[in-house]
Amino acid sequence: MGNFTLPGEAGYEVLTLELAKRWAADVIRDSDGTTLSKEILEAGYEIYSTICLIREHNEWIKEHLHTRQQTFLCTLPKTAAGTSLTFPLMNDFFNEQFKINDSPDAIKFWQVYNRTDDDLVPKNKWRYNAADGSVTVDADPWRQYTVSFLAWRVWEEISMYNHVTNNWNKEHLMQLNPYYPEARSYLKQYIKKWCDNHPETSVVRFTSLFYNFVWIWGSDSRNRHLFTDWSSYDFTVSPAALDDFEKEYGYALTAEDFVQQGKYNAAHRVPSVKKRSWMDFISRFVLEASRELVNIVHAAGKKAYVFYDDCWVGMEPYNGNFKKYGFDGIIKCVFSGYEVRLCANVPADVHEIRFHPYLFPVGLGGAPTFSQGGKPGDDARRYWINARRALLRQKIERCGLGGYLHLVKDYPDFLDAMDDILSEFRQIYALHNAGTPCVLKQKIAILHTWGVLRSWTLSGHFHETSRHILIHVLESLSGLPFDLKFISFEDIIKNSLSDIDVIISAGEAGDAWSGGINWNDSNIVRRMTEWVYNGGTFIGIGEPSAVGGYNTFLRMAHVLGVDIDKGERACHGKWTFDVNQVEGLMPNAALTAQGADIHTREGVFLTDGKAHVLKAIGNVPVLTINDFGKGKGVYIADFAAAGSGAVNSSVNQLLTRFLLNLINYATTGSLEAEGITDNPYIECAVFPDAGKIVFANNSTEIRTASCFWKSKKYSVETEPGKIKILDLQ
Amino acid sequence: MGNFTLPGEAGYEVLTLELAKRWAADVIRDSDGTTLSKEILEAGYEIYSTICLIREHNEWIKEHLHTRQQTFLCTLPKTAAGTSLTFPLMNDFFNEQFKINDSPDAIKFWQVYNRTDDDLVPKNKWRYNAADGSVTVDADPWRQYTVSFLAWRVWEEISMYNHVTNNWNKEHLMQLNPYYPEARSYLKQYIKKWCDNHPETSVVRFTSLFYNFVWIWGSDSRNRHLFTDWSSYDFTVSPAALDDFEKEYGYALTAEDFVQQGKYNAAHRVPSVKKRSWMDFISRFVLEASRELVNIVHAAGKKAYVFYDDCWVGMEPYNGNFKKYGFDGIIKCVFSGYEVRLCANVPADVHEIRFHPYLFPVGLGGAPTFSQGGKPGDDARRYWINARRALLRQKIERCGLGGYLHLVKDYPDFLDAMDDILSEFRQIYALHNAGTPCVLKQKIAILHTWGVLRSWTLSGHFHETSRHILIHVLESLSGLPFDLKFISFEDIIKNSLSDIDVIISAGEAGDAWSGGINWNDSNIVRRMTEWVYNGGTFIGIGEPSAVGGYNTFLRMAHVLGVDIDKGERACHGKWTFDVNQVEGLMPNAALTAQGADIHTREGVFLTDGKAHVLKAIGNVPVLTINDFGKGKGVYIADFAAAGSGAVNSSVNQLLTRFLLNLINYATTGSLEAEGITDNPYIECAVFPDAGKIVFANNSTEIRTASCFWKSKKYSVETEPGKIKILDLQ
Repeated sequence: MGNFTLPGEAGYEVLTLELAKRWAADVIRDSDGTTLSKEILEAGYEIYSTICLIREHNEWIKEHLHTRQQTFLCTLPKTAAGTSLTFPLMNDFFNEQFKINDSPDAIKFWQVYNRTDDDLVPKNKWRYNAADGSVTVDADPWRQYTVSFLAWRVWEEISMYNHVTNNWNKEHLMQLNPYYPEARSYLKQYIKKWCDNHPETSVVRFTSLFYNFVWIWGSDSRNRHLFTDWSSYDFTVSPAALDDFEKEYGYALTAEDFVQQGKYNAAHRVPSVKKRSWMDFISRFVLEASRELVNIVHAAGKKAYVFYDDCWVGMEPYNGNFKKYGFDGIIKCVFSGYEVRLCANVPADVHEIRFHPYLFPVGLGGAPTFSQGGKPGDDARRYWINARRALLRQKIERCGLGGYLHLVKDYPDFLDAMDDILSEFRQIYALHNAGTPCVLKQKIAILHTWGVLRSWTLSGHFHETSRHILIHVLESLSGLPFDLKFISFEDIIKNSLSDIDVIISAGEAGDAWSGGINWNDSNIVRRMTEWVYNGGTFIGIGEPSAVGGYNTFLRMAHVLGVDIDKGERACHGKWTFDVNQVEGLMPNAALTAQGADIHTREGVFLTDGKAHVLKAIGNVPVLTINDFGKGKGVYIADFAAAGSGAVNSSVNQLLTRFLLNLINYATTGSLEAEGITDNPYIECAVFPDAGKIVFANNSTEIRTASCFWKSKKYSVETEPGKIKILDLQ
Repeated sequence: MGNFTLPGEAGYEVLTLELAKRWAADVIRDSDGTTLSKEILEAGYEIYSTICLIREHNEWIKEHLHTRQQTFLCTLPKTAAGTSLTFPLMNDFFNEQFKINDSPDAIKFWQVYNRTDDDLVPKNKWRYNAADGSVTVDADPWRQYTVSFLAWRVWEEISMYNHVTNNWNKEHLMQLNPYYPEARSYLKQYIKKWCDNHPETSVVRFTSLFYNFVWIWGSDSRNRHLFTDWSSYDFTVSPAALDDFEKEYGYALTAEDFVQQGKYNAAHRVPSVKKRSWMDFISRFVLEASRELVNIVHAAGKKAYVFYDDCWVGMEPYNGNFKKYGFDGIIKCVFSGYEVRLCANVPADVHEIRFHPYLFPVGLGGAPTFSQGGKPGDDARRYWINARRALLRQKIERCGLGGYLHLVKDYPDFLDAMDDILSEFRQIYALHNAGTPCVLKQKIAILHTWGVLRSWTLSGHFHETSRHILIHVLESLSGLPFDLKFISFEDIIKNSLSDIDVIISAGEAGDAWSGGINWNDSNIVRRMTEWVYNGGTFIGIGEPSAVGGYNTFLRMAHVLGVDIDKGERACHGKWTFDVNQVEGLMPNAALTAQGADIHTREGVFLTDGKAHVLKAIGNVPVLTINDFGKGKGVYIADFAAAGSGAVNSSVNQLLTRFLLNLINYATTGSLEAEGITDNPYIECAVFPDAGKIVFANNSTEIRTASCFWKSKKYSVETEPGKIKILDLQ
């Protein structure tokens, strides 16, 4: 019992307390848009109170407009047909979100670029017209130009989203920037006063800290979301911070360092040293300023949890400093298994996952949840299976819901689903409390540009990153029994690789996940080569180690035995090959179902004809294993789960099992291992300290499975979507 | 009658003379592997004699081994696991084609490269062991190395191919390099003597000159054809030429300039200045040395024709010097329409096309022609329709066949096909003799790296270049009624574009056809921008103007209104759009037949939402028209004919008509024009001086078509595959 946070709602006291009892909640919380009434507050539950720190201060902000948050914006390029070119700056942008910041301290950061030559245009070649918010450039004919400028953000983005989604008709909330000392000071007073006024609150739930993930909306409804990235730092800028950065680092950042030709610094791109420095600079500020607030909360006798979504930017839970914030717990909303692992590995005392669906009429993307046509019970079960796979591997102490509780009352199937989910959550939690579950012997490392800093995430939710191969790999791995860590290219050079059995690299040429220009460092190539030669297994998926300019496109081509021709080898012959399938490696024919097969990739070819081809599509090898010294190079052309990335779909279970099989086969030569079921639709976890083995049916059918553990065989028949726990003999 | 060259064959005199009569030949020729007997030579026909200049001299070459031809070869890379790495140099290469040239003047050009860092390894760090033909490198562990060396070519490649194809069991013919003065001198004597000995020969058919296109064969039958390029110059190297080049240009070329990391200098890659200089250097030599031979032939009272295939390298018919060779005619083998245009535009008095199939048991690729399972009549008709489309647009004076004549006797359908083909060829020739056919008013330019130098070709036959979009475009255009020229990026800067209505760029990022680094020159972008703004139509297909490093991937994105995301914009929203089909632009639903639709291209998006989307696949716009000033930017994601590129297949006729329609629509706003039929399967050509209009049915069904010319309507019903000629009223 307990371990569950229920969202309460004033006006629905009976429902709140009834569900709190039914679901054995120990905590009741409020949400954005709901409050808790006295009756709820005094019903004997712990109370979490949600605070979105930087909004709900419109009165104060109106008196201190310079403390509003900002961002750099870059116009679309325009072509000069003559010698003068005028940019109405706000033409491309949502005027309810942004206002031009044309104060002198801001204008000094504005830049006009000649994009045809990628040259900065001198300041004396352009003029700002405040009357109509336009910039006029002295142009060369037939060149293209852009204007980058600082803009105030005048509508807090999550509030803006909730407004639009729910057709709210409230005042637009602004957001203050605590980088300005007066705002920081104000916030401290605010929090202190807030704590004084909320004696019943036991946990202050920071939702989240200061800076939202980046969400730049456009003026045209045909392209409203111009840029969306969970991991960029664009929304942290202000002239004050930029000036301080220059003082500390000895050089100034410019608009171009942020807008990057209009491409911005998305997490999927390899970051520059400047971007990393800015992240570090802002993260230190966020740590310092939020530590003050946490101290105030603690001084008031309350705990402080942080919600690691929305305004999380600058709080990097994997940069080694998380404990310094002083947070007592971390909360993460989860659609997927990898988000559970993301939460579970943060060095906090309490980890709480907030389930989906959120108790809103519609979900992300606008599909109905608690409204006409919605099936929130099905949604909950689907997300639960994703989460449960990961929960079987790592402990999470708490779970919860969020939103308008009253919406659930017309959805009895959702209530039933939550009964089951909470029951299973608590059973799994109890097993973890006895001791950690077993893992297979292979130690796995995921290699990418960000390393441990972006453990168990790319950038945001699955559906936001589903075009990236790695998120599919992570989602599969999130429920597999492996010790796993994330390493960067710096780690390859600085740290021993001797404790790693398998390194996985999955990405497209040039992106942060494949590594891009990191592979220009030949020492990376040499270290990886040596490590494989001495027995390591390198699994490359997509365009691993790809960078232009060398004799091979994949820098690990010699290890993989395959390379990718980007057109340079149009005149080269290709090795013919036999395909030698490994029986059982790809669990049955369903792998050819749409969306979950290995897709082909143009240009893949065998370098020296020696790699073993396990699967080919036409003349293209899409799955190969190459012997390299005592190790192996494994290449997979693609790895993509179907649709919205729900790994619990049957085809995706098969893809996950294929990955498990492949790791076992490449490292041991066998598909068999103790602690693995014989049915890809059912996964199991062994908890030796609890003396239990858990079978989880991830499918929608009754299924049977067996598993060997310490030479004993355990067999079960499991209900659709349910777990079954057996005693270890 | 006449205008036809028949291959004769000693031993089959009756057949030869019978077919010469049936087909009204005026010329009889020999072929590689056949001779003409006295009876044939004295039958009253003109005689062409085939000479492959650089082979058939084994006796002399054995006395002068240093005059054999050579090439640079680059081994596959090897990884050092220790501090020493040994390369048996011939491991990767076909030892019947190559022998190591380890003479001192050759070894000085050898290079060992550290490919991990792309660094040259100093000569004191490696040693050659002549005893076993290996190089041992003092290596750094975990780096990869290659060895580049000079090799003798000891089996003339066309002879090698014919040997292998026909299972010949004759002596392997070597090839001499006339760059060596003694070989050049020998060749002159040889030609003189040959002329003296062949009084009956009226035309010496040079097949071809000195240097073969590049064909590097491998040691392993699983990858026999390591590298094949019709336009590379690798086979022209010799220490003597390299030394002379250095004296003239002041710098030395190295092995690396040729092997290029193992990628070699394929025609599809953007050439370096060094490569262009070497081509120029060799071409000047080939001109000088072959002019001597032509003079000898002329002095003997004979004509000299050159066969522009096989050993053509160094004779560039579009470099402005062709007339200086003194050739009386040029002969080109043709599978496709573009090859006819390639031949027709060479500034020679006589143009002759040699039809396919060649009279061999098997064709290129090993498919049967004049042997069990072959259908040479069908083949001939198919190739004829390709050729005929182009013949209707430009005059070709002669046609012919080649190979073993006796093979045809069991294939009466082939004989019938040739009856029809020769009849149509002569009818079309007669129309051209009266005057040139009409063209539409749009002047078209194809823009690519090579410009006029590679007019009407990429590199070799269709099947060798079919992965390149441009060859499909050229093949379609070869039979369309347009004035067309080829321009280079230098032409964009140096020449006026005011005489051009449409510029087409079709290629993939980085290749010579798209232009690659040429687009780094912002003056190219500006000139093109200005030209479109003032009314030009830029049609970009595939990845036109693509080069990395700028705000857009396509440098002409502002003109096209579309760009391609290579992953950098994963976080950017995309414009939604409506699809507005243009009625009739894509001739009927058959365009969706496999292989001839516009395929999708990952990452294509609208830049500013303004381009008109005429077709989309899913959310990807694949056909767009963008207004830009007074001009248009047209984007097509792909343009690929099905299968082997036979444009006469019905789907490809539709694709061709789509291109014609698109050019008309983009430039005039209408699909209609005089001189175009209303049936995509039937094309027509108007010959005003002859007073005729020709309808050509390119399909295998009876079809009807109409065409307006000077406001009069002409209608026909045409037999499958045949032409019908009407009088102009």
